[in-house]
Amino acid sequence: MAKFLTSRAEDYSQWYNDLVVKADLAENSAVRGSMVIKPYGYAIWEKMQAILDKMFKDTGHVNAYFPLFIPKSFLSREAAHVEGFAKECAVVTHYRLKNDTNGKGVIVDPEAKLEEELIVRPTSETIIWSTYKNWIQSYRDLPILVNQWANIVRWEMRTRPFLRTTEFLWQEGHTAHETEAEAKEEALRMLDVYVNFVENYLSIPVIKGDKTESEKFPGAINTYTFESLMQDGKALQSGTSHFLGQNFAKAFDVKFQNKNGKLDYVWATSWGVTTRLVGALIMAHSDDNGLILPPKVAPIHVVIVPIYKNENERNKISEKAIKIKKLIEAKGYIVKYDDRDTFKPGYKFAEYELKGVPVRLAIGPRDIENNNVELARRDTLEKKVYPQANIDKVVDDLLNEMQKTIFQKALKFREANTYYIDDYNEFKEILNKKGGFIYAHWDGTADTEEKIKEETKATIRCIPLEAKEEQGKCIYSGKPSNKKVLFAKAY
Amino acid sequence: MAKFLTSRAEDYSQWYNDLVVKADLAENSAVRGSMVIKPYGYAIWEKMQAILDKMFKDTGHVNAYFPLFIPKSFLSREAAHVEGFAKECAVVTHYRLKNDTNGKGVIVDPEAKLEEELIVRPTSETIIWSTYKNWIQSYRDLPILVNQWANIVRWEMRTRPFLRTTEFLWQEGHTAHETEAEAKEEALRMLDVYVNFVENYLSIPVIKGDKTESEKFPGAINTYTFESLMQDGKALQSGTSHFLGQNFAKAFDVKFQNKNGKLDYVWATSWGVTTRLVGALIMAHSDDNGLILPPKVAPIHVVIVPIYKNENERNKISEKAIKIKKLIEAKGYIVKYDDRDTFKPGYKFAEYELKGVPVRLAIGPRDIENNNVELARRDTLEKKVYPQANIDKVVDDLLNEMQKTIFQKALKFREANTYYIDDYNEFKEILNKKGGFIYAHWDGTADTEEKIKEETKATIRCIPLEAKEEQGKCIYSGKPSNKKVLFAKAY
Repeated sequence: MAKFLTSRAEDYSQWYNDLVVKADLAENSAVRGSMVIKPYGYAIWEKMQAILDKMFKDTGHVNAYFPLFIPKSFLSREAAHVEGFAKECAVVTHYRLKNDTNGKGVIVDPEAKLEEELIVRPTSETIIWSTYKNWIQSYRDLPILVNQWANIVRWEMRTRPFLRTTEFLWQEGHTAHETEAEAKEEALRMLDVYVNFVENYLSIPVIKGDKTESEKFPGAINTYTFESLMQDGKALQSGTSHFLGQNFAKAFDVKFQNKNGKLDYVWATSWGVTTRLVGALIMAHSDDNGLILPPKVAPIHVVIVPIYKNENERNKISEKAIKIKKLIEAKGYIVKYDDRDTFKPGYKFAEYELKGVPVRLAIGPRDIENNNVELARRDTLEKKVYPQANIDKVVDDLLNEMQKTIFQKALKFREANTYYIDDYNEFKEILNKKGGFIYAHWDGTADTEEKIKEETKATIRCIPLEAKEEQGKCIYSGKPSNKKVLFAKAY
Repeated sequence: MAKFLTSRAEDYSQWYNDLVVKADLAENSAVRGSMVIKPYGYAIWEKMQAILDKMFKDTGHVNAYFPLFIPKSFLSREAAHVEGFAKECAVVTHYRLKNDTNGKGVIVDPEAKLEEELIVRPTSETIIWSTYKNWIQSYRDLPILVNQWANIVRWEMRTRPFLRTTEFLWQEGHTAHETEAEAKEEALRMLDVYVNFVENYLSIPVIKGDKTESEKFPGAINTYTFESLMQDGKALQSGTSHFLGQNFAKAFDVKFQNKNGKLDYVWATSWGVTTRLVGALIMAHSDDNGLILPPKVAPIHVVIVPIYKNENERNKISEKAIKIKKLIEAKGYIVKYDDRDTFKPGYKFAEYELKGVPVRLAIGPRDIENNNVELARRDTLEKKVYPQANIDKVVDDLLNEMQKTIFQKALKFREANTYYIDDYNEFKEILNKKGGFIYAHWDGTADTEEKIKEETKATIRCIPLEAKEEQGKCIYSGKPSNKKVLFAKAY
């Protein structure tokens, strides 16, 4: 069978890069740090979008669209936001090109310089809160529950497809509320929406938590995160939900008349997930043969491959295959019948394993005689022969089961790679040798956090929401601590 | 009843601007020429997207995503394209900001200057064809049938919400083919997809045609267009489909081995529609009371308004209203029950007329006694009382009927404002007095086209695909012509 990929054991990072390209998910573009998302990769993102969009709407949100460009001065309005976001940005300075008088194509017209530079949005809090100012006068105008699907640019120095790109796609929710309690509840509600999505659709188990002061979003009071463990022992943060307090309302002077007739600043949240989720999905489950996709986000659920020696056999198989295809499609699945004559079955098998199609059905002349079909499941690579009758039911049950099996496998992997450590040497040893999630006591200071990061490259991924109270000593400073936090090296 | 709008007779242009803002469709943003698409306006665009996306997929297309930024040099590669597109563009010259040492926020870091400037895409032919070069080696790789949903920036000097904005949303199809015939067929197929969408979903009748040399897309061999007539007698082009020949393949050196084993350049098409369609929808149907939306793209199909004097009446009505809501929802419609206590029924009536909700049901105490409901249809403003039983069936039939009635009304308007003219004075008089579509003979020269434009502001909207052969004389030059073309003033 064809081998397309570097193995994970050999070079995990190369395996990932190979897989992204070979499975036709994405490729680098002519623009530094920007990728082209190819149709197969985009189909996964579309599935994710559709599911998330429905979840947002079911929780009362509506979509809108705000400008791509942000006036430079807006980025200076919220103090913490300036520090965090006004740095690595794409800056538009001119609005016209003209023909080069040397006939060498086009040059930037020096006369078409903007009075104020425009920044390509690195996130939209500032442009959105400058808009909300006009939308909000009274408590009757609240809450505002808006989401936007958009592209974002952050000038990253080191990029990797899906995981970190200069331009990426995302959704960003921006909500406005009457009270602090309501805004906090919203931030946590959307964290739960994300966790539901990632665990039950992407089959990736996560740890929910609060970011530390040093790691939170610039401008937020709390940044809630969900962290998952990749197969190389590194953590991936794939989305965040922020309680922004009144910071942006104050920066953009957004006040409302409350129920008591008094003016107050509006309370805010923002929350987002990005095309990085595709990277998480790839890294969490896939193997040396290629992608493993949970059925709920697979662009193709079932592929049927005919095995024949001549035209007569092929015709007989096709007739059956098309019937089976229709049966399974009637259950709501996407089925592909691949009767291309230019590739051998073995090549096709490898190709669909590479692309992570959850179920493969093969039909040969003997299967026709016996009314059978051979079924291979992608996650375990197990093969089994089934009668053609009821194959739709078998596939339906199996796809539902695989969704859970893939989650359970990832959960077991995480459990096997999670450590509760009280000794700093042991802590360092785990990080050096195999990585994983480490729960350890921390004294709560940014100073200790920074030193641990310098010495081990591990960061505090989060203060888990479900961390239990327990007295202990900081693994680094020995100072008292009342709960363990989650450390890991991270993407 | 409340009046929200300037009337069309008084000032059509102001009527449009008022309507966009008052119906909560969009508003100007802090960024010159960029609009904020508000949730109600965006909901219309989402409906359009969903319908079009399905049509594209049903005709074999898949979605992908290409970079927002285009290296400046790419725009110079296709000669005609340079002239048409490399001008009014947003240019990214820097990739970093830094703190102003005077403490006045942020400034552009002069050290972070890009070696080659990046252009924010005004259309994506160049970046896509530079990508296709790697995707295409053999005829087996063809056709490529890709679509992208994206944002686009063209530095327009005079902007109007939806009709012409610096940033807009659109879809752009980019296909690659083995043969000229196949590419031409694709360009015409997508023209028909658009026409089907605009006529049968937006209820706007169109004339299909070919653009003249002067009006076609820079880089195209043929630009197919569909033109519709707005209520002020001006034409609106709301989308185009281009047969690009081998121009972009040559510019980006995209060759393939054909079935005879010979290398040949690939044949191309591109086609797009934009958020301008929302502007077309508004202008084609709406009246002095507000929007009129064809049911297939209405975010809300039915609103139910209770009319009550006390809590007791309100409760009785609510019980019935919620039952009716569920009945109509079961037919697949979106129904809103508006029992807000802060607004009077008359105000609500005006508000939903403004927002173009196709059907309004009102229920008062007498309706409860008689098991009736009052139905008002938005397009004709007619009211009629119906028994509550079967109201779901009545509404279903009516919504289907309205979809056609709205189209028929627009078609009649166009017919009443279409002229077949052989005399240039008459031609000018019509354009000065009332506008409309004018069919007239033209000698086929760019020179005549330009002069007519200078003298009358009318342009050749298209050479209709269905124009019949007839001998005649050019309305301007008197030279021979063998068919009439379509003239109008245009947006």
